[in-house]
Amino acid sequence: MTAESARALETYLHTHIPLSAAMQVAVVSAAAEAVTLAAPLAPNINHRSTAFGGSVSTLAILSAWSLVNLRLNAEGLHSRLVIQSNHMDYDAPIESDFTATATLADPAAWPLFIKMLQRKGRARIVVQSRVRCGAVTGGRFEGEFVAFRLDGAT
Amino acid sequence: MTAESARALETYLHTHIPLSAAMQVAVVSAAAEAVTLAAPLAPNINHRSTAFGGSVSTLAILSAWSLVNLRLNAEGLHSRLVIQSNHMDYDAPIESDFTATATLADPAAWPLFIKMLQRKGRARIVVQSRVRCGAVTGGRFEGEFVAFRLDGAT
Repeated sequence: MTAESARALETYLHTHIPLSAAMQVAVVSAAAEAVTLAAPLAPNINHRSTAFGGSVSTLAILSAWSLVNLRLNAEGLHSRLVIQSNHMDYDAPIESDFTATATLADPAAWPLFIKMLQRKGRARIVVQSRVRCGAVTGGRFEGEFVAFRLDGAT
Repeated sequence: MTAESARALETYLHTHIPLSAAMQVAVVSAAAEAVTLAAPLAPNINHRSTAFGGSVSTLAILSAWSLVNLRLNAEGLHSRLVIQSNHMDYDAPIESDFTATATLADPAAWPLFIKMLQRKGRARIVVQSRVRCGAVTGGRFEGEFVAFRLDGAT
């Protein structure tokens, strides 16, 4: 993915998901293997001067959604992508700017996911995201997403 | 809890957790049995014109944190409250303003939680929160929080 398309993803997120703009989310890198988003501490701080759990969880959700959406677009599949459930562990306090890096829980599951989406119009995939602050892992996210194939203009 | 103290909680959240201000979180009611927070759709919308999962999850976290914090304050315990993990199910799309109502997963566990906090300086409690949009349950949250007793000024 080029720097231009990373900027396009950032613009898309800020335009369509205002919370991402309030959090000042930036796209660090975006490729089929991994998407990394960043957020500064200031707009995401809590009463203890560390990153607020809601912001940590939200950055992870955004990274995971962006990864699957980017891969679906690369397949040329017009679909709607919805989060169904997620689990989040908050491993350590985050004391400055932080990132979330999303990867597929099982990259080998992708071809079946695409086959199911094409055949059944609906498929499910699990995405992980690791939230880091420098060398520290601040949180670990796992979320289940469902894609619905959209035929024609919606 | 009086309307005045509900307003105090709202001011506290907006002042110390800027994301809650960006989400325009309001305190509907706050009592030892349950805390209900509300958020309008507009600042929490996603690319599909429904509530963004990050906002849904964040409102639930805020309601759960507020409940335990309110109960700890009522016990006169000076403590730090940290989210350790959470699970969130997104049951249905949320198409307008929404609320999150937090309750203890097991109210009978509270006395032991307080005893542990006093004796060991650290204790763990599970909080649930239900996210509703009108009559529709949009999401169900369960989170584990850890309280650390603070002795003296911190």
